[in-house]
Amino acid sequence: MTAGTVTEFDRALALVDSAPDVALAELGAGWRFGTAMHGGLLLAVAAAAAGRRIRAEGRPGDPLSISAHFLSAAVAGPAELRTEVVRLGRTLSTAAVSLAQRVDGVDVERVRALVTVTDLERLDADVRLQPEPPAMPPPEQCLPCPAFLEDATLWDRVEIRLDPATAGWVRGEPGHRPHHQGWARFTDGRDPDPLALLLICDAMPNTVAALGIPGYVPTLELTAHVRGVPSPGWLRFTQTTRNYSAGMIEEDAEIFDATGRMVLQSRQLARAPRTGPHHSTTRSAR
Amino acid sequence: MTAGTVTEFDRALALVDSAPDVALAELGAGWRFGTAMHGGLLLAVAAAAAGRRIRAEGRPGDPLSISAHFLSAAVAGPAELRTEVVRLGRTLSTAAVSLAQRVDGVDVERVRALVTVTDLERLDADVRLQPEPPAMPPPEQCLPCPAFLEDATLWDRVEIRLDPATAGWVRGEPGHRPHHQGWARFTDGRDPDPLALLLICDAMPNTVAALGIPGYVPTLELTAHVRGVPSPGWLRFTQTTRNYSAGMIEEDAEIFDATGRMVLQSRQLARAPRTGPHHSTTRSAR
Repeated sequence: MTAGTVTEFDRALALVDSAPDVALAELGAGWRFGTAMHGGLLLAVAAAAAGRRIRAEGRPGDPLSISAHFLSAAVAGPAELRTEVVRLGRTLSTAAVSLAQRVDGVDVERVRALVTVTDLERLDADVRLQPEPPAMPPPEQCLPCPAFLEDATLWDRVEIRLDPATAGWVRGEPGHRPHHQGWARFTDGRDPDPLALLLICDAMPNTVAALGIPGYVPTLELTAHVRGVPSPGWLRFTQTTRNYSAGMIEEDAEIFDATGRMVLQSRQLARAPRTGPHHSTTRSAR
Repeated sequence: MTAGTVTEFDRALALVDSAPDVALAELGAGWRFGTAMHGGLLLAVAAAAAGRRIRAEGRPGDPLSISAHFLSAAVAGPAELRTEVVRLGRTLSTAAVSLAQRVDGVDVERVRALVTVTDLERLDADVRLQPEPPAMPPPEQCLPCPAFLEDATLWDRVEIRLDPATAGWVRGEPGHRPHHQGWARFTDGRDPDPLALLLICDAMPNTVAALGIPGYVPTLELTAHVRGVPSPGWLRFTQTTRNYSAGMIEEDAEIFDATGRMVLQSRQLARAPRTGPHHSTTRSAR
């Protein structure tokens, strides 16, 4: 890829100001999970809007911690982002972002987010503790993500390669652990950056797919911490669920860059199917 | 404790309406970590304000997922909570809450939170997967939390008993893992409820204390998921850090009730000391 190329992801993040606190985005049909827009894309767009707003105040605007509550399913098309500066600081600032779409003449809010931003390039390299990146075969020996969801156009743009050890379900042999690990990158060769991490932390097939329950698992809330600027190259990820109860799961993702540094941690709460067998209980249902 | 007794925690959560979207709270000096108000108390007060606001609309208001970004250190005294209804739904609603205090005639925002609420009593008992509660000695064989922080008045109200296996630092023998497990309850015998879980998820000594780095570790952001209504009795918790880098840690807490059900998961991003030796690196600093 030529330096300076504007990639499809960069175009997805392009915002046009319409008022001091309002920006417009075009949510592309290429970033969907089924009929709904992909949550990670909305997260990246919200963080982009927050960073842009804070930078306009002369402060650094890279996403450090973003908490998004998902209110209704966004669809491809125009979206309006309203931002509010909550706190301006020398190293840390916080903005609130509301992403809405016009439906039948009425503004319908899709996502409300709080975004704390900083200058990630200035985070130092003092890594005292982090897990090892997952041990797994190289990408070419891992499995592409199967198209179990119709119109998951996101996966034409983000390439996921699953470690065969955690992807038995791909060949019809579900496992007993709601856990995936694998590799991720943009198919067009764009290098990862902090906003890309926010996209990718939600781009894996859901953990319950590993149990043989693939399907659409809508996010209720997702919080991500960006802990470093990723180096160019493949990203490695793990994704695990510890609690699957009352029709909800939590999903924890960790992303490591090509040098092995942990660059993101995220956790989401999502609705999970209640159908299907009871897999993998460490405790019996009560 | 007699049924119907108004405990100190209930008094701390008492809100007085001053306008449709504004409630007043009195932050008591008994809930401090040093000079600052305890973050978990602020979380519980914010969730109480959100729940109250949503219940006024006739919808259930128990906290399911709360994301709080901490903007400045709150102090004992009056606080104003402004709530905004973001979404009203039959089973899930979302509110935004701003907690501010008046300083020298100016409103200073302390916490901004997003709170998604539901009817937790209606969550079903279909537990498909959760970790086992931590194995450890009974509370009377565990260690009280040492008063390493001046004016940690919170610990007069919340009793923490640390598993000796994870509390070597209490006797001057720090370990190599930023991990605690133990028991927690109110000292006055109040039973836990969802708002109490929000208090307690941040009431343990910080994980880096286990490495021999006790001190004040201010929270930048904390998100908690309440996954069930706790049964009466002692709570069990684990608290772990996976990433300690660039002067920040993430802390993951899990709380189990007396029946062994996991009732809360939380994660916070906090500033950690940069001083002290390099403990427990699984990777060398780069």
